[in-house]
Amino acid sequence: MTFSYDGTLVNGYQKQLNGRTIQNEIEKALLKICNKKTTIVATGRTDAKVHALNQKAHFEIEMDITPSKLKQALNSLMPNDIYIKSIIVVDNSFHARYSVKSKEYVYKINMNEYNPIERNYVYQYNKNLNLKEIKRSFKYLIGEHNFKSFSKTDETKEDYVRTIYKITVKNDSGLLTFTIKGTGFFRYMIRNIMGTLIEIGEGKRSSKDIIDILKAQDRRKAGKTAPPEGLYLKDIYY
Amino acid sequence: MTFSYDGTLVNGYQKQLNGRTIQNEIEKALLKICNKKTTIVATGRTDAKVHALNQKAHFEIEMDITPSKLKQALNSLMPNDIYIKSIIVVDNSFHARYSVKSKEYVYKINMNEYNPIERNYVYQYNKNLNLKEIKRSFKYLIGEHNFKSFSKTDETKEDYVRTIYKITVKNDSGLLTFTIKGTGFFRYMIRNIMGTLIEIGEGKRSSKDIIDILKAQDRRKAGKTAPPEGLYLKDIYY
Repeated sequence: MTFSYDGTLVNGYQKQLNGRTIQNEIEKALLKICNKKTTIVATGRTDAKVHALNQKAHFEIEMDITPSKLKQALNSLMPNDIYIKSIIVVDNSFHARYSVKSKEYVYKINMNEYNPIERNYVYQYNKNLNLKEIKRSFKYLIGEHNFKSFSKTDETKEDYVRTIYKITVKNDSGLLTFTIKGTGFFRYMIRNIMGTLIEIGEGKRSSKDIIDILKAQDRRKAGKTAPPEGLYLKDIYY
Repeated sequence: MTFSYDGTLVNGYQKQLNGRTIQNEIEKALLKICNKKTTIVATGRTDAKVHALNQKAHFEIEMDITPSKLKQALNSLMPNDIYIKSIIVVDNSFHARYSVKSKEYVYKINMNEYNPIERNYVYQYNKNLNLKEIKRSFKYLIGEHNFKSFSKTDETKEDYVRTIYKITVKNDSGLLTFTIKGTGFFRYMIRNIMGTLIEIGEGKRSSKDIIDILKAQDRRKAGKTAPPEGLYLKDIYY
């Protein structure tokens, strides 16, 4: 199942006992349709306020319904900030998370004046960044590295090694769109990379600092966590 | 004063005793800053869910403060869906509404699949429209006409004569942006024109029907009212 959502008014993707989450909303609808508790397994969670253009999840139901009818039924029950884009039948060997080959995220920064219409969909930075220096840092991030310095402080995770395939940035009249593709990203990894890139663009750090930050494997060496509203889960590749 | 706002969570522009409106929010802030009840006079109201990129208003205060300091003070008190873009001093002959020469609005329609991220900022039409036929109708709308057929049903207004200077439409991969500029627009005029253009694009009417609709001066002859969330007050010319 491929689906999109606006992260603004939800407490993130993952199921919670209290609070509105994407998983809760979809599973509630599946329960209504299938009359049976069904768990959906997504490619990964997204935090509160983070958006998804093409999130994917797998689930198992025993029911005589075509994927397109199921899509229709689900969308008829979805709140207007979640949309089911497509459903296809997969075989049992497929796993929405474990079968992932790579993921692509987008991060948007507004360097122009504050725009209330976009407040939930871009990081309203509202100042200029040195894009040339930011771009110079990409080559140090690309490749296989231990990204522990970009992890969430209070998390302990064994393996912080990931491969970043590409990072690009497009400047559309002051609206920056960063695209970052890699084997996978642990929690806060992209937002911490973005926060560090912003400090490079502010002149607080140089692009080469990335080398030392990666080497240190220490969260305190990297920059601040960039806000969630600029982040979009864009594509999942299997 | 030039300001922008997101119409999603407000009950429109105009002051109300209950409910959150743009005028209420700005006047509340002015009261705090100036310690005196101050009324702002805008170019016109916008309905609930309608956005403004460059709304303008005038007001009078007696206070020793520069326009840029006042802008700063106001923005520090604004909720995040309203933003004061600039303030300049004008002479007493200026009136935000009566001095208007022309106004420009934008209306956005998404012909692609439903996108939850844009749900409050475009009309999610999600089907194709015959753009060629829609464009053919523009020439019948442009010029000075009595637009009573595009008025709000329950309103009686003496003068429905307005001049439309231009209508254009741009198709950006299925996202339509209509731009309409004229001497002024009464309530629902643009949304009723848009609703009629959509029916032309659906093949329910032909472009030439505009001639008869205008001639009839009868609201029942025109199409449905298009939803508010696609509408933006873009620019005011003096």
